[in-house]
Amino acid sequence: MSTSAKQTPLKPNPLEALSTELDDDMRAVNAMIIDRMDSPVKLIPQLATYLVAAGGKRIRPLLTLAATQMFSGDITRAYRLATAVEFIHSATLLHDDVVDESDQRRGKDAANLVFGNQASVLVGDFLFSRAFQLMTEDGSLEILRILSNASAIIAQGEVMQLTTANNLTTTMEEYEEVIKSKTAALFAAACEVGPVIAGAAPEKAEAMAKYGMYLGIAFQIADDVLDYMAERETLGKTIGDDFREGKMTAPVILALQEADNEERAFWERTMGNREYNSNDLKTAQDLFEKYDIYNRTLALADEYGEKAANALDTAVSDHPLKTILQNLISYTIRREL
Amino acid sequence: MSTSAKQTPLKPNPLEALSTELDDDMRAVNAMIIDRMDSPVKLIPQLATYLVAAGGKRIRPLLTLAATQMFSGDITRAYRLATAVEFIHSATLLHDDVVDESDQRRGKDAANLVFGNQASVLVGDFLFSRAFQLMTEDGSLEILRILSNASAIIAQGEVMQLTTANNLTTTMEEYEEVIKSKTAALFAAACEVGPVIAGAAPEKAEAMAKYGMYLGIAFQIADDVLDYMAERETLGKTIGDDFREGKMTAPVILALQEADNEERAFWERTMGNREYNSNDLKTAQDLFEKYDIYNRTLALADEYGEKAANALDTAVSDHPLKTILQNLISYTIRREL
Repeated sequence: MSTSAKQTPLKPNPLEALSTELDDDMRAVNAMIIDRMDSPVKLIPQLATYLVAAGGKRIRPLLTLAATQMFSGDITRAYRLATAVEFIHSATLLHDDVVDESDQRRGKDAANLVFGNQASVLVGDFLFSRAFQLMTEDGSLEILRILSNASAIIAQGEVMQLTTANNLTTTMEEYEEVIKSKTAALFAAACEVGPVIAGAAPEKAEAMAKYGMYLGIAFQIADDVLDYMAERETLGKTIGDDFREGKMTAPVILALQEADNEERAFWERTMGNREYNSNDLKTAQDLFEKYDIYNRTLALADEYGEKAANALDTAVSDHPLKTILQNLISYTIRREL
Repeated sequence: MSTSAKQTPLKPNPLEALSTELDDDMRAVNAMIIDRMDSPVKLIPQLATYLVAAGGKRIRPLLTLAATQMFSGDITRAYRLATAVEFIHSATLLHDDVVDESDQRRGKDAANLVFGNQASVLVGDFLFSRAFQLMTEDGSLEILRILSNASAIIAQGEVMQLTTANNLTTTMEEYEEVIKSKTAALFAAACEVGPVIAGAAPEKAEAMAKYGMYLGIAFQIADDVLDYMAERETLGKTIGDDFREGKMTAPVILALQEADNEERAFWERTMGNREYNSNDLKTAQDLFEKYDIYNRTLALADEYGEKAANALDTAVSDHPLKTILQNLISYTIRREL
């Protein structure tokens, strides 16, 4: 990333601030996550614990808890639903890693490498079913509607991503549709659950859903930039996964718009035909620098961040957690991990 | 299969009789299946249609329709829920074929071969989510509970099957637990939905669930015998899949109980260590003949069939469809496909 795109991260970062503010609630959710991934078939908690113990930001359950607190909803209901949200997310991670043939997840060997693709597919199915059991226990048909819709949209987005992979004609509109579906839909649902638990006015719930949706889009755009950032390697993260998988993300689509004939041939050989040489990732990064792609992509994320901030203003007038959720937007876009 | 285990199939067979009796309803369900597997992401209906158009017995949605009719429930609600049941089944088929690395499904190349493992996993997730959308539209939390429980139990059974594969110490009790979970739980749920739609007494719903559970166990035991039956090859079906995958099913577990040292070494080399020679399937079949394994396995299926018949008697006193569901039990066990 060029120096101009960097900013000093907020201390403590808003995700940590959220975790601190919701510490007791998040402990209750973590306990429920452990409890409800248990099964007499011990491979299930083994594999699920492996994924969950590897960490992860827990941003989705934190959003559900924060949204519930801001609207003064019954927080004990939120525990169950935040667990359901995290299980849906975990299931998609397990299936994604099989689909992407991933080697790494959260800085460890991916579960599919350790336990096999078969177990990853089936334990994903288990966690997904368990999420619906939790929602059914909660008993709100409105929330079941929100989260079953989100689940269908996530799967649809993942399939769409599959069909755009290695396809150099993929447009920014198609890219945005993919990330809106595969990532932002669950952020939106996680946020919407809070005001719905609280019985808030529909327009408030809708505004919270929009905050989550735009935050999720910004989050994924930033993620797609980070996948090319050499600096991450110093943090033990792999880079270039999207490049090797031929995933058509914003940096590549924007670079293709600027490409001369030679550059286009480079993108066609690599991302189009999946023929890679050892120096190709470096070439891609150089092309991104040449056209200032990182800053331009993050500027797009900022546009969605602004929409998220506006939606949050519509949803909530004043609350200590609101400030953190506001700060979370720019942190999400300028984070270094 | 030895000649003694064969019986003349009923004409018309009870599955055909059920389809005829419920023809209008099944047309409505088939229309809904096509309608609800649609998506703007065209790979989804393409893959799903490939699976569904390949046929399949539609036994689960037929059970939901029949159970609803027998208890005079609102049949239009049953359409949506029968579709949900078939979608859960289709999702598990797609994921199973990835897990088993299957070549064939319903006499055609399996979807994972045609569309890839990635698409099969993700379209399975889509169908699964869609099933929960359909249930949420129906709006019965009791039915959501029944079907989300069944889904979790199916996944649990599939994982358990994975852990028992290639393990020669697998017991009949463990085998029965696997098939009860991976197969019978959805049969049970498909049947239970009918009386629940109708608001029937809980003991009636429970008895219908038991009918489905025992029918499903008998169905799977028969399926596991059929997987070794040479006669099926004349019908274009593959045989020996379970043998090659090291799946510990009833015929193998029973044969192991009788095995002398040489035979045990054969099972250990093949199913235990997955070292196969071209003549091994024939040897396995010969061992089954030697110990009359087919008849003994089907006798076990008959025991469950009897339990299914008793449960059906508890559930329903008299109804034209009841007779067909009774006949379905022995047909399920002695079918040739």
